[in-house]
Amino acid sequence: MDFSSKLLEQAVDQMSQLPGIGKRTALRLVLHLLRQPEAQTEQLTKALSKLKLEVKRCRNCYNISDTELCDICANPSREEELVCVVEDIRDVMAIENTGQYRGMYHVLGGKISPMDGIGPSQLTIKPLIDKVKDGKITEIIFALSSTMEGDTTNFYIYKQLEGTGIKTSTIARGISVGDELEYADEVTLGRSITNRVPFENSLKS
Amino acid sequence: MDFSSKLLEQAVDQMSQLPGIGKRTALRLVLHLLRQPEAQTEQLTKALSKLKLEVKRCRNCYNISDTELCDICANPSREEELVCVVEDIRDVMAIENTGQYRGMYHVLGGKISPMDGIGPSQLTIKPLIDKVKDGKITEIIFALSSTMEGDTTNFYIYKQLEGTGIKTSTIARGISVGDELEYADEVTLGRSITNRVPFENSLKS
Repeated sequence: MDFSSKLLEQAVDQMSQLPGIGKRTALRLVLHLLRQPEAQTEQLTKALSKLKLEVKRCRNCYNISDTELCDICANPSREEELVCVVEDIRDVMAIENTGQYRGMYHVLGGKISPMDGIGPSQLTIKPLIDKVKDGKITEIIFALSSTMEGDTTNFYIYKQLEGTGIKTSTIARGISVGDELEYADEVTLGRSITNRVPFENSLKS
Repeated sequence: MDFSSKLLEQAVDQMSQLPGIGKRTALRLVLHLLRQPEAQTEQLTKALSKLKLEVKRCRNCYNISDTELCDICANPSREEELVCVVEDIRDVMAIENTGQYRGMYHVLGGKISPMDGIGPSQLTIKPLIDKVKDGKITEIIFALSSTMEGDTTNFYIYKQLEGTGIKTSTIARGISVGDELEYADEVTLGRSITNRVPFENSLKS
């Protein structure tokens, strides 16, 4: 693209570094900001800078937090012996939204993915193992997405936990509530039969 | 959405003010920035602030420019008597990319759209009329999109120009080069027959 303005070009270049934002979309967004009052650009840039500079990782669960210890870890009514292992804050938000979980979390910060150059040392796996070895945790729930990377990460952690005697589980995979069987994929349907649950359980929620 | 961090929430709120960016996409973009080195956020926010604070409108054509007079208006080899009326800088970039146009531009900054509260006074129509009345321009080419708003804007300017005796034209509408007739819409095909051009013209480019 041939810009008549260096300033515009730089702004578009920077905006198009964001994932899923191409040059055309970046130009559309930047032109939108130009049409808006100056305050909007200022608020956007301030919020981004402030976040980047001031945000913390909770020292217990590594979730994004404004404080040293996040609200969930600081809440005395949560079940401290139960830890759900997730990839990032979006998973924490999704599980919290269900209102069904009263345990703690451990945010890995990603999945093991050699293709993207992400190994175990870049994730918060070591602190998780250390927490388990401290002996306060009785069960680890794996809630990573069931992709190759997710399964690899689960298995790696599982292996590291060998000998600790801790109970491990994964969230149930199965047919979504309300879905038709005929449209379900075979792997999911197969697993939902293998891992069938007592009928009485389905009466509870 | 229920954020564990106010800082994160503010950044997502601001990001989702951009057109076409919902809360989920905003969260994805902000989390991406958090994973990148601090320099990236800094460069992005600096480029946006700098653009908003320092960018100018060319005093002749109202295009976005770093200087008082944009490169096109300042170029003595462009044909000063020919002015192409466009909506915004993206149209200027598109026409410049063709390499087929050597005249000047006039950037309106939008289209007349009562639905969005945009009237003639918010656009740079008055300066255009004044330029025409100065007498240096011999032809105005309308290159707005052929939507209701575009047609309204064209017609409004056309009416304002009545009595000045200036030549007006619009860019040709027709079947795209390489397109099959059977897939063309009727209006476009109809116009391309009504406004047919001498066969010799098609041999030139």
